[in-house]
Amino acid sequence: MRATVMYGAGDVRVETVPDPVLRERTDAIVRVVQSCICGSDLWPYGSMPATGQGRRMGHEFLGIVEDTGADVAGLARGDLVVAPFVWADNTCDFCRQGLHTSCRHGGGWGSPGVDAGQGEAVRVPQAQGTLVTLPVAPDSALLPSLLTLSDVFCTGHHAAVTAGVSARTTVTVVGDGAVGLSAVLAAKRLGAERIILMGRHKDRTDLGREFGATDVVEQRGDQGVALVRELTGGDGTHTVLECVGTQDAIDMSIGIVRDGGAIGRVGAAQYTHVPLGFDTIMRNVTVTGGVAPARAYIEQLLPDVLEGRIEPGRVFDRTIGLDDVPDGYRAMAGREALKVLIRP
Amino acid sequence: MRATVMYGAGDVRVETVPDPVLRERTDAIVRVVQSCICGSDLWPYGSMPATGQGRRMGHEFLGIVEDTGADVAGLARGDLVVAPFVWADNTCDFCRQGLHTSCRHGGGWGSPGVDAGQGEAVRVPQAQGTLVTLPVAPDSALLPSLLTLSDVFCTGHHAAVTAGVSARTTVTVVGDGAVGLSAVLAAKRLGAERIILMGRHKDRTDLGREFGATDVVEQRGDQGVALVRELTGGDGTHTVLECVGTQDAIDMSIGIVRDGGAIGRVGAAQYTHVPLGFDTIMRNVTVTGGVAPARAYIEQLLPDVLEGRIEPGRVFDRTIGLDDVPDGYRAMAGREALKVLIRP
Repeated sequence: MRATVMYGAGDVRVETVPDPVLRERTDAIVRVVQSCICGSDLWPYGSMPATGQGRRMGHEFLGIVEDTGADVAGLARGDLVVAPFVWADNTCDFCRQGLHTSCRHGGGWGSPGVDAGQGEAVRVPQAQGTLVTLPVAPDSALLPSLLTLSDVFCTGHHAAVTAGVSARTTVTVVGDGAVGLSAVLAAKRLGAERIILMGRHKDRTDLGREFGATDVVEQRGDQGVALVRELTGGDGTHTVLECVGTQDAIDMSIGIVRDGGAIGRVGAAQYTHVPLGFDTIMRNVTVTGGVAPARAYIEQLLPDVLEGRIEPGRVFDRTIGLDDVPDGYRAMAGREALKVLIRP
Repeated sequence: MRATVMYGAGDVRVETVPDPVLRERTDAIVRVVQSCICGSDLWPYGSMPATGQGRRMGHEFLGIVEDTGADVAGLARGDLVVAPFVWADNTCDFCRQGLHTSCRHGGGWGSPGVDAGQGEAVRVPQAQGTLVTLPVAPDSALLPSLLTLSDVFCTGHHAAVTAGVSARTTVTVVGDGAVGLSAVLAAKRLGAERIILMGRHKDRTDLGREFGATDVVEQRGDQGVALVRELTGGDGTHTVLECVGTQDAIDMSIGIVRDGGAIGRVGAAQYTHVPLGFDTIMRNVTVTGGVAPARAYIEQLLPDVLEGRIEPGRVFDRTIGLDDVPDGYRAMAGREALKVLIRP
C-alpha cells in the first residue's frame, strides 16, 4: 500500500510500504476513507533531523474495517469507524478515569512497527478499545466533522473541559489555527457567552466568529495581554485555552488569566518552562490540560455532530489525494491552508 | 502598644507603636489573645534588605473585639474572633466565589497604614467581612487549633482541595514544616488513605504520622522522586501538595505526580519558573493551588476543631510572650521550633 513517510524537515514522501496484516488477536485492519494533516505534524516538518529510516505520519483517520483479530468483539467487516489519535485498551485504570492517552497498553500511531493515518490502510492495535463505530454511510457529508473527533475537535474540547469552561466563565482562546477554532466551538458548545479569540489571520478569525467568538484580538505579547484585560474590566478571563504551544503563547496566557482562573493548554509545548512564580501563587492561577484523551470524548460529542448542531469539519479548507500529501504539508506550513483533508 | 517590626534580614524588634484607632466605619479594633510566626515570615527574615522604616509583622491572630465602626454588624465588644490572613469584604465577586485573597476591597496585614498580627492589638479593616466569631471562652484549650484557621491549617487544606484530594486519590506532601503537616492532616480529613510525607526531621515526620501520613520519604531530588514512584508501583501519586516553595520542591513535585494528576502548591514560591514542558503535556499534569483564601474555609473547618475531631494546633511546639518574638524568629529559622505561638 501507499503511505506517508517523513525523512526530515521539509522532506515528506508518499511511498509503497508493506500492506498491514493482523499480528495480534486484538488487532483490526482499517481501510482509510479520510485522514488529515495535523498542526502538530508541522513541528517535525519544520525541525526533524534527516534520517534514513523515516517516520510514518498521521494520527487522525476514519475508515472501514476490513478484518479483525480473534479477540476483537463489537466490530465487523464493513463498519465505518473513527480512530482517536492514540490507541488504547479502554479498560485499564487510566482509561477508566478517561485518560486514554496514558493507557497501560496503548501507544501512538507511527511508532515503531505501527502504521499511521496518512496512508491507505492501518493495522489498529487494541482495536476493540480504540475504534468507535460511526452510524453513517461512508459517503456521508458528515465525514469531515466526524474526522475531527479523532483529534482536533476533541483537543479543543479538552482545553475547554480541563479549564472549566461553562456558562459562568469568560474565555480567551490563544491561537487561530484549527485547534484554536475548535476550542472556540467547544467553549460555545459548553455555554460560554464571552469568547475572545486571539489571532491575526482574518479568514480564520472570521470562521472563529461563526464558531462563537465574540471578540477578536490581533495583538500579541504584552499588548495582547493589555487588550484582553481592557476588554474584561482589567480582570482577564476565567479561562484561557492555549492552542499554540510556543513560549510566547503560554507566557501570554499567564498574563491573561483572571485571579482564580485556569489555563487549559493543548498546544504541543515547544517551551520547557512556564512562568509560574510568586505572583501566580498570589493570583491562584491554575495550569491544566495536556494531550487530549479523544477516546474519552468521542461518544459524548458524537450526537451533536450527527444531528448537525456543530460542524467542526469546517476547519478543513482543502482536500487532496494521497499523492498530494507533500503539497498539503507545504500549504499548511505556509499558512495557505488551515487544515488539509486527505482522501487516499 | 507594643508590636513586632522587621528592619531587615535577622533584625526583628518589638517596639512601641501607635495604639490602633477606628479610621473607617468598617473597621474594628481587636485586642490580640494569640498570634504566631509563619514559615513565610522566615523568607524576609532571611533576605529582607535593611530599611529604616521597618515592616510590621504577623498575619495570623485571634483576639477580642474592643470596638467596632458604625457600619460593622454582627460583631460586638467582647466577642472572640479569628482573622484570616488577608482582610476582605466577603461580598465582592471574588469573595463570593471563595477567592477572598483577591478581594476587590481587601489587603494584607502590615501593609502601609495597617497593623499586623504580632502585636498587642490590631485595627481590622472590613471587619464584618473579615472576622469570624469563635463560640469558645478566651481561655479555651482549643485556641491554638482555632488560631491555625487564620492561615496554616487553611493553607494545607487549600493545597488538598485544589489538588482534588479525596478517598480515591493517593497523596504526596512535600515538606514537613507546619504547612506540610497541616496538609497531611487536611488530606486525611478529606478521606485520603495513602499519604506519603517527604521530610527529614524525625520529630516533625512523627507528628505527620500521627496526623495521617502512611509513609515517610527522607530523600530529596531525583532520589526522592524515584522512591515515591517505587512506593506507588511506578505511577506517582494522584495529588502532590507542595508546601515548601523552593525550586527543588516544585521540580520534585512535577516528577512525583501521576499522569492526569494535580499539584496543589501553597509554598511561597521562591522560584520563577516551573518545568512544564512537552512531557507534562503528554502526562496531563495540572499545577494548581496558590495563596489560601482562609476566610472561605473557616466556617467549614470550625466544627471539626470545636468538636475535637482534628487538632491542627499540635503544630505549635513553643509558646512565647511578645518580648520574646525575636528569639521566636531565631528558633524557627534555626529549626529549633516548628511553629511558635505568641501570647502578647
